[in-house]
Amino acid sequence: MIHDPMRPSDSIGHTDVSPRETPGSIGPRGDMPPEEFREWGGATVEWIARYLEEVGELPVMSRVAPGDIRAALPTHPPESGEAFSDILDDFERVIVPGITHWNHPSFHGYFAVTGSGPGILGEMLAAALNVNGMVWRSSPAATELEEHVLDWVRQLLGLPEGFVGAIQDTASTSSLVALAAARHRAYPEAREKGLFALSRGCIYASEEAHSSIEKAGIVLGLGRDAVRKIEVDSEFRMRPEVLRRAVLSDRAQGIRPVAVVATVGTTSTASADPVSEIADVADELGLWLHVDAAYAGAAAMVPELRPAFRGWERAASIVMNPHKWLFTPVDCSVLLTRFPDEMKGSVALTPEYLRTRETGVATNLMDYGVALGRRFRALKLWFVLRYFGADGIRERIRYHVALAQGLSERMRAEAGWQVMAPVLFSTVAFRFAPAGVAPEDQDALNLELLESVNASGTAFLSHTRLRGRVALRLSIGNLRTREHHIERTWAFLNDFAAAERGVAGPPSSRRPAPPR
Amino acid sequence: MIHDPMRPSDSIGHTDVSPRETPGSIGPRGDMPPEEFREWGGATVEWIARYLEEVGELPVMSRVAPGDIRAALPTHPPESGEAFSDILDDFERVIVPGITHWNHPSFHGYFAVTGSGPGILGEMLAAALNVNGMVWRSSPAATELEEHVLDWVRQLLGLPEGFVGAIQDTASTSSLVALAAARHRAYPEAREKGLFALSRGCIYASEEAHSSIEKAGIVLGLGRDAVRKIEVDSEFRMRPEVLRRAVLSDRAQGIRPVAVVATVGTTSTASADPVSEIADVADELGLWLHVDAAYAGAAAMVPELRPAFRGWERAASIVMNPHKWLFTPVDCSVLLTRFPDEMKGSVALTPEYLRTRETGVATNLMDYGVALGRRFRALKLWFVLRYFGADGIRERIRYHVALAQGLSERMRAEAGWQVMAPVLFSTVAFRFAPAGVAPEDQDALNLELLESVNASGTAFLSHTRLRGRVALRLSIGNLRTREHHIERTWAFLNDFAAAERGVAGPPSSRRPAPPR
Repeated sequence: MIHDPMRPSDSIGHTDVSPRETPGSIGPRGDMPPEEFREWGGATVEWIARYLEEVGELPVMSRVAPGDIRAALPTHPPESGEAFSDILDDFERVIVPGITHWNHPSFHGYFAVTGSGPGILGEMLAAALNVNGMVWRSSPAATELEEHVLDWVRQLLGLPEGFVGAIQDTASTSSLVALAAARHRAYPEAREKGLFALSRGCIYASEEAHSSIEKAGIVLGLGRDAVRKIEVDSEFRMRPEVLRRAVLSDRAQGIRPVAVVATVGTTSTASADPVSEIADVADELGLWLHVDAAYAGAAAMVPELRPAFRGWERAASIVMNPHKWLFTPVDCSVLLTRFPDEMKGSVALTPEYLRTRETGVATNLMDYGVALGRRFRALKLWFVLRYFGADGIRERIRYHVALAQGLSERMRAEAGWQVMAPVLFSTVAFRFAPAGVAPEDQDALNLELLESVNASGTAFLSHTRLRGRVALRLSIGNLRTREHHIERTWAFLNDFAAAERGVAGPPSSRRPAPPR
Repeated sequence: MIHDPMRPSDSIGHTDVSPRETPGSIGPRGDMPPEEFREWGGATVEWIARYLEEVGELPVMSRVAPGDIRAALPTHPPESGEAFSDILDDFERVIVPGITHWNHPSFHGYFAVTGSGPGILGEMLAAALNVNGMVWRSSPAATELEEHVLDWVRQLLGLPEGFVGAIQDTASTSSLVALAAARHRAYPEAREKGLFALSRGCIYASEEAHSSIEKAGIVLGLGRDAVRKIEVDSEFRMRPEVLRRAVLSDRAQGIRPVAVVATVGTTSTASADPVSEIADVADELGLWLHVDAAYAGAAAMVPELRPAFRGWERAASIVMNPHKWLFTPVDCSVLLTRFPDEMKGSVALTPEYLRTRETGVATNLMDYGVALGRRFRALKLWFVLRYFGADGIRERIRYHVALAQGLSERMRAEAGWQVMAPVLFSTVAFRFAPAGVAPEDQDALNLELLESVNASGTAFLSHTRLRGRVALRLSIGNLRTREHHIERTWAFLNDFAAAERGVAGPPSSRRPAPPR
């Protein structure tokens, strides 16, 4: 490291404090001493390495009951500092049993994810540097690496030049910022005057769009009703002609079209809206097109999966989350836009204390969002992209898709199981639907199956409703998931089905006993 | 770890992929192998330990020019994966010189911070667990530890029972969520219908309030003009009688009072608004009182500093940032409220796919904010509170305050220097104001001094404007800062002043040369 030869100075005589420094430590008023950090840092790395090796042997879903964790913690904070060994012991004893293991190869709930080794190492360094990249000057590398890595992501996604943006914490925030920009375009006066005196406006999204779009409508003051839910087709894709009619009908009533959100990889079934046709409507009727590809976006890196994204290069903004299917620890959501000036214009503010000589010359990433403080999230993403490489990323995504398609084929071939939607990516929406059982009873049966598999510790699934009926979801995104894990889960599901078909008596008595 | 004795199953015969696993590694489609993670994890810990030992010898502000970092990075992402050793080498070679070192003991810009050893170790484990605590079930310990640690923080701050909340990324987000709740109280119909047809409403904050309050006004659709800036007194404190008159005057014109934001520890001078008197006005006139104590909040843990917070227990919501002055890595902002139902009512949404058996029984922290995904931020905060203990935290905060007060006494005693505001906490706002120099020229001189000290690498300061005049800010919050660091910075400032007084010629020729 660079040595700064500046002279030591005399102490400030009349402050009434003295630091009482002891040799070899930073002192009683300082940080954890370096030797202690080395010791516990080494122990923590070893703990992580073993955890990641052995996580597949843990029950996936935590078995604690509500209140258990808090009951195991002292009511009051400690008055005196505690040894780090005690803290780490309590972490293992109290916290780990309360963890639902997203790292488990049989975690298939929501969207399955992987933090990955290089991602974790990137987070370690980001936490150590602890910079706040709000303005260029406050850490130039944090700003420039973020801009650069976002351009790498853009290239990998096959998007044209001109898409730039910023990393946000989550897709909810990315979509909020995108829709704030859309609102700004539709209501330029609202930034100063608010929405009070203005005519109503609407955001359009499919019935299958994520709840964050409605939340953005609420937060932005447009209201939940302003989010129009457009009907989907038999494969859960927004129907562009219905969208067009809805916008025209609204416009005829004086309602301002603000934005349309197309989703590629919906939460319930991972269906893909027809972006190109939606872009036609957006262009014709003057809507800001935002593409929510939070989960599936990474799949655009794989040439044979890219057709599902056709037309997204015409979007005004796109969100895709490296913390979902690009092996990056939570949180890391990439927001790209072709209209950075409008996006910044919608929310940016530069008070005097954040003005620097570089303002107007270099990028100040704070201008792209709500949060002023910005963690150095680009570091972990850079590590992940370099460690796996474009080819390694494609290979892993392809494998997940093949696993999901293999499972869906098995399900389709087996009587009593329904695959509820085409498997475009790595998520299977399915349902146990034995013949002769009424749909409502099938719903109850599937919720029972969900609780059964999750309580067993074998696998973790989540559920949704499709056209009013319960469906289960099995999403694959973990780098530890192998065929035998999928097979074990499939065997569990089949055991449940066999018990259901073959055995009489109340449901609770005829399940296989959960493993210890 | 718990061993799950479940039987291994046959492989899925007809999927066309095979994982090609090699013994001792997770396989070609997997994560970084455990042995490699151990090796590079150890190297990363050693890098961090040395960095924290030696950071005081680095120039505080990065010396790169805009564009330098990007120019050093390849235009395209790598096609093949790269060795982690190469990635770490590039991190040191390209990224570290582009870092402005917030860890440096002479970093005094914005608000100075410390990630701290236990905080970094907590982040490592959070990145490894990689859970998303959006709902209780998705990791019970993430939810319950967050609730518990927030209650510890509440106790340490001396707040009564009844304040609960959630950790947000930054104070900007915390204040947005708090003001969304205030908007919900003032306009219960807006959640569904938006603000379009409603009568105008206002948020009140002092002239010295943070820009995030205006940003929240913009994002929430109230508009920037809806944030009324209330005059401050000679010590930069909101004048409650002016607030009261403003609200009454607005109300007489049909404007709805939404919220008042009292700041304890303003950004420019760390002044404290009279919260108790503002609470009187809020109670009388029906305003949601939000207290922004993002920086200074931690000081409420120190009994003799608590009077500055008098009355904040009457607030509807409070934000304080452990990532500012509570030794926790960025990001970690604590948002507390006495009205959790209203806060959740303002933004919460539970789509079917996030409904669980525990919904309504256990807390789902996603209900407290915009972001659905939630990192396990409580872990690092728990580590920090336990490692330092209440007493250790108080000792460290007291020391920072003593250093700041010592410096301000020196400045007050020295001709040509002005301390611009009382030093309540650990931030000194000051100005070089040599006699006989016009105020505008003093402004230029202070901006020159700012660039000079920052370019020198000796220390990093930031600036602001107070009543239109430039002031410099020196904030202390790093656990590595000692008297001799402050003294060295003070010596630099005095050398600048001496050169300014004694030497003729253009300013650029008479500065001490920056160190190499």
